[in-house]
Amino acid sequence: MAMGSRQPAGKAAGTTRPAPRTLLRAAAALAVAVGAGCGPTADAGPSEPPQQASSLESWNEGPAKAAIVDFVGRITDPSSADFRPEAERIAVFDNDGTLWAEQPMYFQLIYALDQVREMAPEHPEWVTEEPFASVIRDDQEALAGFGLPELMQILAVSHAGMTKEAFDARAREWQQTARHPRFDRLYSSLTYRPMVELLEYLRANGFQTWIVSGGGVDFLRNFSEEAYGIPPEQVVGSSLKSEYRSDASSPWIVKVPELGSVDDKAGKPVNIDLHIGRRPILAFGNSDGDFEMLEYITTGDGARLGLILHHDDADREWAYDRDSHVGRLDRGLDEAAARGWVLVSMARDFSVVFSEQQR
Amino acid sequence: MAMGSRQPAGKAAGTTRPAPRTLLRAAAALAVAVGAGCGPTADAGPSEPPQQASSLESWNEGPAKAAIVDFVGRITDPSSADFRPEAERIAVFDNDGTLWAEQPMYFQLIYALDQVREMAPEHPEWVTEEPFASVIRDDQEALAGFGLPELMQILAVSHAGMTKEAFDARAREWQQTARHPRFDRLYSSLTYRPMVELLEYLRANGFQTWIVSGGGVDFLRNFSEEAYGIPPEQVVGSSLKSEYRSDASSPWIVKVPELGSVDDKAGKPVNIDLHIGRRPILAFGNSDGDFEMLEYITTGDGARLGLILHHDDADREWAYDRDSHVGRLDRGLDEAAARGWVLVSMARDFSVVFSEQQR
Repeated sequence: MAMGSRQPAGKAAGTTRPAPRTLLRAAAALAVAVGAGCGPTADAGPSEPPQQASSLESWNEGPAKAAIVDFVGRITDPSSADFRPEAERIAVFDNDGTLWAEQPMYFQLIYALDQVREMAPEHPEWVTEEPFASVIRDDQEALAGFGLPELMQILAVSHAGMTKEAFDARAREWQQTARHPRFDRLYSSLTYRPMVELLEYLRANGFQTWIVSGGGVDFLRNFSEEAYGIPPEQVVGSSLKSEYRSDASSPWIVKVPELGSVDDKAGKPVNIDLHIGRRPILAFGNSDGDFEMLEYITTGDGARLGLILHHDDADREWAYDRDSHVGRLDRGLDEAAARGWVLVSMARDFSVVFSEQQR
Repeated sequence: MAMGSRQPAGKAAGTTRPAPRTLLRAAAALAVAVGAGCGPTADAGPSEPPQQASSLESWNEGPAKAAIVDFVGRITDPSSADFRPEAERIAVFDNDGTLWAEQPMYFQLIYALDQVREMAPEHPEWVTEEPFASVIRDDQEALAGFGLPELMQILAVSHAGMTKEAFDARAREWQQTARHPRFDRLYSSLTYRPMVELLEYLRANGFQTWIVSGGGVDFLRNFSEEAYGIPPEQVVGSSLKSEYRSDASSPWIVKVPELGSVDDKAGKPVNIDLHIGRRPILAFGNSDGDFEMLEYITTGDGARLGLILHHDDADREWAYDRDSHVGRLDRGLDEAAARGWVLVSMARDFSVVFSEQQR
């Protein structure tokens, strides 16, 4: 069974099938490779009722939580030298690996591969046509060798050539049905509860919370409001170009298979400037793809806070950093201390990892 | 004296110098030509105190005001079939010719030409180098012949090759000192009071108010908050590409002389989708550059409102439409009625035109 297929993957959590070892890390910022294997152990804690977090209750006491509370306290205290009016309280968050999981590969890439398989019956020629043939066969070795040309072909059929409405309908259906191979749960249940609490905590303190993700903006907007309380207009991501077309009846917007913006690395501060137009004061990422964003946000005037989520919890989630092809964190680990960035340890700082224990 | 120069242009209002007849209408959406001449007559009404408009008091009673009030009433009435939650109450406004004046040429182009003149002493080679030589000489005939190549050269020196902070400082200084040749007032005082009232009225009714302008996004963001109460993150405009750079001390973003997005015509709905991600329900423009935006916004599901400001008031402002090179309104005039778009007459519907009578 393909990873991330629509069918309940009851056995997938224990499967020994190796994840593809490298599945392209390409400019689409969708590209992906799998470093850490799928460990068999999910967090087995008691099922907790889903609840609206109104505090940082899923954060353990420690330096990370203290740094956040201290920063927000200073920013919101009119008597503090670090006080900022609400208009300037802008926080930016990476998504993959920061707000939700990103292993064994970016969830949006799983979506793209699933789309190819779902569309295959309408495209009998794909049985022999690469890269589609390998996707349909779930040929892990072939997938591992894909590069940007193959990725663009997959994006072209899974993300382009359709109206925005058609894309949204497909993405939402997948998001509401597809299940993660290790945890056998909806991908949307693999958001991190402490991070959702942090978003709510910041908004309760007058912050705007933005997503600035390497993932595709249209894909993100189909779940950001429900999962994070973040409306579409506060989601910045990678994008294909799109075109406006109209006929006698009505107009539509169609995505074309050409890269528009790659919202990764130096593309993040550039897009922050384009979309927000004001330098945020808090940034939270987890990989070297967030390095420039963290650098840009934390070198402005006044009090600023940069945070990096370190995936060091193989039991409850995954442990990976310098050697991972997904969410590689190398330079950030080296320079965090000198730059004053707070390293958040999933193992130490998160009392609960995922937003919902069962779903 | 050059039009729009920094020096108080005490005599400019009465000058007989002809405005350049055509000064390029180019893909930058900055490009411009001058159709209507500068009439000598400003509105001579009594000086009214600047005030925060909290209603539509500068709108005369009539079908335009009635259509607005009726629409907002239905959208905000929970018992109405047209009711919308606040998240969906998004209104988009063109800027040049819709929120502020655009004659005798787009104000941002005046800024660009002024910048060239101000920088000229540091560039002695410009005395003989086109297009700068013509700008420095204020050679109206030569300016009238400029096309996209000349415009890009002017943008390259006036809008690119500098940090965002440096651009912002220059733009703000100009906006706070340069004076309009006809009215001898700051350009920022040539916003339309009824439109500022409308923005406030919509926000008081739970709407987000966005600017979607052919003008440059960085230029706009330096006055949108003060002039319209619209924060930087709700300003969408044309843009040059930018790059992120960093050295040992700190990073910076620099604009490069290459077109990024042209936020005009079909570029407007495309950018609305990219930046807002949700189809607005109200759009207000004034030229055929807004046609696609109006079409896109008014053809969605549910109640929607499209409005076009018709410049038909030569005494208080200007009268121009089909034959103007700035803000040409031709197809929009033909199709407004059939499409249900409300034509707002400046002469008939605005009891006051500009935000401030003196400044």
